Amino acid sequence: MLAGPEVDRLAAMAGKHKIFLVMGVIEKEAYTLYCTVLFFDPQGQYLGKHRKLMPTTMERVIWGFGDVSTIPVYETPLGKIGSLICWENRMPLLRTALYAKGVEIYCAPTADDSDVWQASMKHIAVEGGCFVLSANQFCRRKDYPPPPDYVFADVDNEPLPESVACAGGSVIISPSGVVLAGPNFDGEALISAELDLGEIVRAKFGFDVVGHYSRPDVLSLIVRDHSLKPVFFTSAEKKANNEQKLP
Amino acid sequence: MLAGPEVDRLAAMAGKHKIFLVMGVIEKEAYTLYCTVLFFDPQGQYLGKHRKLMPTTMERVIWGFGDVSTIPVYETPLGKIGSLICWENRMPLLRTALYAKGVEIYCAPTADDSDVWQASMKHIAVEGGCFVLSANQFCRRKDYPPPPDYVFADVDNEPLPESVACAGGSVIISPSGVVLAGPNFDGEALISAELDLGEIVRAKFGFDVVGHYSRPDVLSLIVRDHSLKPVFFTSAEKKANNEQKLP
Amino acid sequence: MLAGPEVDRLAAMAGKHKIFLVMGVIEKEAYTLYCTVLFFDPQGQYLGKHRKLMPTTMERVIWGFGDVSTIPVYETPLGKIGSLICWENRMPLLRTALYAKGVEIYCAPTADDSDVWQASMKHIAVEGGCFVLSANQFCRRKDYPPPPDYVFADVDNEPLPESVACAGGSVIISPSGVVLAGPNFDGEALISAELDLGEIVRAKFGFDVVGHYSRPDVLSLIVRDHSLKPVFFTSAEKKANNEQKLP
Amino acid sequence: MLAGPEVDRLAAMAGKHKIFLVMGVIEKEAYTLYCTVLFFDPQGQYLGKHRKLMPTTMERVIWGFGDVSTIPVYETPLGKIGSLICWENRMPLLRTALYAKGVEIYCAPTADDSDVWQASMKHIAVEGGCFVLSANQFCRRKDYPPPPDYVFADVDNEPLPESVACAGGSVIISPSGVVLAGPNFDGEALISAELDLGEIVRAKFGFDVVGHYSRPDVLSLIVRDHSLKPVFFTSAEKKANNEQKLP
Amino acid sequence: MLAGPEVDRLAAMAGKHKIFLVMGVIEKEAYTLYCTVLFFDPQGQYLGKHRKLMPTTMERVIWGFGDVSTIPVYETPLGKIGSLICWENRMPLLRTALYAKGVEIYCAPTADDSDVWQASMKHIAVEGGCFVLSANQFCRRKDYPPPPDYVFADVDNEPLPESVACAGGSVIISPSGVVLAGPNFDGEALISAELDLGEIVRAKFGFDVVGHYSRPDVLSLIVRDHSLKPVFFTSAEKKANNEQKLP
Amino acid sequence: MLAGPEVDRLAAMAGKHKIFLVMGVIEKEAYTLYCTVLFFDPQGQYLGKHRKLMPTTMERVIWGFGDVSTIPVYETPLGKIGSLICWENRMPLLRTALYAKGVEIYCAPTADDSDVWQASMKHIAVEGGCFVLSANQFCRRKDYPPPPDYVFADVDNEPLPESVACAGGSVIISPSGVVLAGPNFDGEALISAELDLGEIVRAKFGFDVVGHYSRPDVLSLIVRDHSLKPVFFTSAEKKANNEQKLP
Repeated sequence: MLAGPEVDRLAAMAGKHKIFLVMGVIEKEAYTLYCTVLFFDPQGQYLGKHRKLMPTTMERVIWGFGDVSTIPVYETPLGKIGSLICWENRMPLLRTALYAKGVEIYCAPTADDSDVWQASMKHIAVEGGCFVLSANQFCRRKDYPPPPDYVFADVDNEPLPESVACAGGSVIISPSGVVLAGPNFDGEALISAELDLGEIVRAKFGFDVVGHYSRPDVLSLIVRDHSLKPVFFTSAEKKANNEQKLP
Repeated sequence: MLAGPEVDRLAAMAGKHKIFLVMGVIEKEAYTLYCTVLFFDPQGQYLGKHRKLMPTTMERVIWGFGDVSTIPVYETPLGKIGSLICWENRMPLLRTALYAKGVEIYCAPTADDSDVWQASMKHIAVEGGCFVLSANQFCRRKDYPPPPDYVFADVDNEPLPESVACAGGSVIISPSGVVLAGPNFDGEALISAELDLGEIVRAKFGFDVVGHYSRPDVLSLIVRDHSLKPVFFTSAEKKANNEQKLP
Repeated sequence: MLAGPEVDRLAAMAGKHKIFLVMGVIEKEAYTLYCTVLFFDPQGQYLGKHRKLMPTTMERVIWGFGDVSTIPVYETPLGKIGSLICWENRMPLLRTALYAKGVEIYCAPTADDSDVWQASMKHIAVEGGCFVLSANQFCRRKDYPPPPDYVFADVDNEPLPESVACAGGSVIISPSGVVLAGPNFDGEALISAELDLGEIVRAKFGFDVVGHYSRPDVLSLIVRDHSLKPVFFTSAEKKANNEQKLP
Repeated sequence: MLAGPEVDRLAAMAGKHKIFLVMGVIEKEAYTLYCTVLFFDPQGQYLGKHRKLMPTTMERVIWGFGDVSTIPVYETPLGKIGSLICWENRMPLLRTALYAKGVEIYCAPTADDSDVWQASMKHIAVEGGCFVLSANQFCRRKDYPPPPDYVFADVDNEPLPESVACAGGSVIISPSGVVLAGPNFDGEALISAELDLGEIVRAKFGFDVVGHYSRPDVLSLIVRDHSLKPVFFTSAEKKANNEQKLP
Repeated sequence: MLAGPEVDRLAAMAGKHKIFLVMGVIEKEAYTLYCTVLFFDPQGQYLGKHRKLMPTTMERVIWGFGDVSTIPVYETPLGKIGSLICWENRMPLLRTALYAKGVEIYCAPTADDSDVWQASMKHIAVEGGCFVLSANQFCRRKDYPPPPDYVFADVDNEPLPESVACAGGSVIISPSGVVLAGPNFDGEALISAELDLGEIVRAKFGFDVVGHYSRPDVLSLIVRDHSLKPVFFTSAEKKANNEQKLP
Repeated sequence: MLAGPEVDRLAAMAGKHKIFLVMGVIEKEAYTLYCTVLFFDPQGQYLGKHRKLMPTTMERVIWGFGDVSTIPVYETPLGKIGSLICWENRMPLLRTALYAKGVEIYCAPTADDSDVWQASMKHIAVEGGCFVLSANQFCRRKDYPPPPDYVFADVDNEPLPESVACAGGSVIISPSGVVLAGPNFDGEALISAELDLGEIVRAKFGFDVVGHYSRPDVLSLIVRDHSLKPVFFTSAEKKANNEQKLP
């Protein structure tokens, strides 16, 4: 259970605007940081979280490794909502696990403003037969603390305050690969689209990655989705969950 | 072992031009047709084949289903060459099997000339950390037999002989997602690019889908890559392969 | 619940001096003795106890065996306080259980005045990323009853009254392995150090034994931390703890 | 199976000098580097390898993660030889796995020349009841390529060619924690000691970490020592090992 | 609560002689008889009872079955007093339950005058580390009603009035197995011994059946010591015991 | 699997004399000694072993602790043979585990020549409804190495070579508590008796400790009879026993 004033504030925002909010954050547990997605509902409730499974290159020095116990898919009046964050969206086995959970509204918060990211989002929409909503941050150098508190890669070439650090590119794509909104590279913005869930049915008719277009006789994916902890206290396990088995 | 005059002719072409030739064909075995890729080397030798694992929608009426006993990856002086054909390129588990075999030059013959296909090719290049060479046919109505021998979807709206049936779009993409040649939609053409295998190393440094960016502890893919046949004659099996076990 | 005049006296001392007191004692329950650590708070309250899990060589004749139902870690304004006693500090699985409980101030009362003990304390500090406070007794022959009430190992070589029986060596070490106070081998003494809990964060950044530097996918420790009793009376169990399950 | 000219050269050296050689190296498989220990015997044979389980902080950007399928312990005329490399020696669960395999001669190649490392080696010797042989590199700035090919942490403060980059500290310690040779911080050197395996028996009499001083009833370590691979080809598995089960 | 003139009379006797009285009786509740032990204190108070858990062979025709809600152990100035009656003394699990309650003065009223009974009493003393006081009745044929009111086993061989029906054998044994008084087979008699509770400590030092010589990790006894009744009136239960849970 | 020249020699003796041989030995595994019983059959085969569960007082310094994975009961033409060794015969829960396995011929090798031991053997025979065969060693001071290689308790009062160190007392008892042979205290000897298994049936008619005279509704014994090991290698587990579950 994640808690704290930041979580409360995000929950309040979701409740105030009566929206489902899917938000990338940095989570701290004990002495480790995680790249995490939080889910909130229109009633202002915190629903749960997903932790990034594998930190990307330099992140591995700072961020912890998630496991597959946190890839929730929430059944909502809008459709089934799930999320992967940042470059783990490139992991075909992890995406397949999310597809198998029936994701219909696939949220992909990121910090990647490249041309290739746009291609991946389009690919994922048709591969998964789902709507893809990728929110990317738009920020300038001045949005970060000044040096020496925060140092960009090369200390001798400190960018100008107005220079763009991450160019955005938020986008919404349909299950047949049609871009419904964005990509927006113009600055902070709100993009939106009306989603017709019937599109999913039509797309899956042609290609259903975990249905008629799978080949479970020859290709099967094992997803070990229990919580990974180095130490199990049997008393805690019993209290937490009577049915849970030790590994 | 595939044999016949068409195979011989393709082999001779590869030998004459001293090229590796990766070619999409329609294979006939007994009473079943398969969508198949053939591989030839610069010495004019037939190397082997890959059969499309899963026919696409209407194809299922005509084509047979492949298995994973035919996803060869050939180690060549140019790099490791493999291939998936048509929409099976959308199958994340099958692609991952090919990545695990170390494919460096990923050939994707297709008949899909859509915008989404281009996005998928770019995605696969970065997902797999490999060069993607997608050859798509360019053809007009007149390239097929006239009706009633060959009927396009709607018999009452027979296209004009010059109308484009498939628009091409052959393309070559680098492991970092840069388009090196194409996509060509202008008609029959030969496209080419110089491939620097060092690009693969640099791309894998950031994202290695079956290496440092995999999570084999929680996500593992089982590939049953033996030959699928409804009837096994034990004597034939012994002859063919002393080590092969029955499934 | 441990009670008695000795416990009251220790509690009073903790209250008078407004200190957390972590004290090695010999506990007697029914007909068995245990090597035990008691915890008291600055309000003069007895907090609880830890029983040594495994008696050392000759001790096994006299002392009972603890279980893992008593490895408390107390959250205090000074940090999280826990303790192992004597040679069980050498047990890597037991230490890991304490690390998993988040110990920040690791108390290790002992009777081992060897050079190797000092090395172990330094190792534990960096292994666990915690402050280690090891209090060792300093005592002379005359502090024990005279023979024949109390006999040292060799009855024919009774030590002189002033001879040192245990040489002390109390020490305080930081999470990065820096000795902050001691080791004191000069006689009875009080050693102290100011502990900066931020040191723990900095040390865990490099090595977090139950966090980013663990590998729960391949190495997992099961801690059966229920109370071990040869006979369970169901009525007593119900009264003591509604949630507790029989083994 | 690891192969290559460097392996051949090391094997030849072991054969020439009729020694067991335990050597830290950087291994390259596909596109990933591993921090690895190689084992050779006096006949000049390559015996096998151990891959570092968890890269340390910045290493995680470059080196891959090992698994527990490679913690060999070799029964030799000198005793049972095993090895952990660098900071994974700090992992109590991993050490315990090695102890359980009966290691008698525990080799710990490292690049850590700190005072704390010496304490850890002494601790491990008594914790494991084994001889610890820790070989640390001694190297100067000039032993690395000159900038810009190789850059030390701060490019503006390039060290002088003669400045010490890693100060060594190779050491040999007995199961009772006695330093038999070293630590040597004087430069490149060969240190040696005569090992009396009877020392192990005497040390284990007092403390046997996986024997009489363990508590398997309440603390048990699960070691998942199969090979971790993201993709399993069933044909390859059958060929490699008839008994091996898929995960 | 047991009441009646016989109970009053026994209580008065205990009070008059200022003794703890432990007495085997036949208890009648509703239409069922029980083989029961009654406890009285030197103040002439009835303390409580123990009902024989399991009737012996032919007894099962007449006597009811007890449960484990009545195995009291009374803390008295003489030590902790408990009792099992007749052949249930042979039940190792039931004895262990009594040991776990800390019995120090183990009373075993019986009607077994065999040689084997003496062996069992001696065994129980050392097994339980307690004093065993076994009172056996001495009676002749004439102590029972004459036939046909009371018939011994074989009606045609009615014993002579003076013939011994049960030969006694009352005995007092120390925790180390030393016979302190008896066994008396000479007729009605009063036997007595001085009990040194320090004997228990010395015996338990070597063998403590529910302490250091138990193995609760692998052998644990569950004692369901609630009252067994075929019908529970919830209102009655609430009145009797607010804390008691239904089974 | 236990192996070695001593085992071979004992097996040969059993085969030569065509007897079942149940023999107390000292077993060595890794660095730990166990007090163990070995079983051999008339064909000269080693059948298996039982390790003493709990060492007795001073033994705990030297001998390891067994678990309940080794309490075999062998079905033989002579009846079902099992064994406990030395003072663990005093453990009522452990005996009950053996009774539950159906032991008919209960072997109790020991080094206890006391009067109490004889009582316990008689008690066990009637408690368990089985034949008890207790073999005790007869030895003199001279049967041990001379000092200083072997020192009896008090070095200053070295016994005379002919003085009896252990007086024997081997005995065979029937299920109704009748002594069939022995106890022999006269020196080394062979004692024997003819066993009528029908005796067991007759004894159990009156008292069946794990049958009609048990009360499983209120007293139940949990026997955790898996192997206790501090470290589990999953690969070894799979190889050894496909059905075995990890703890």
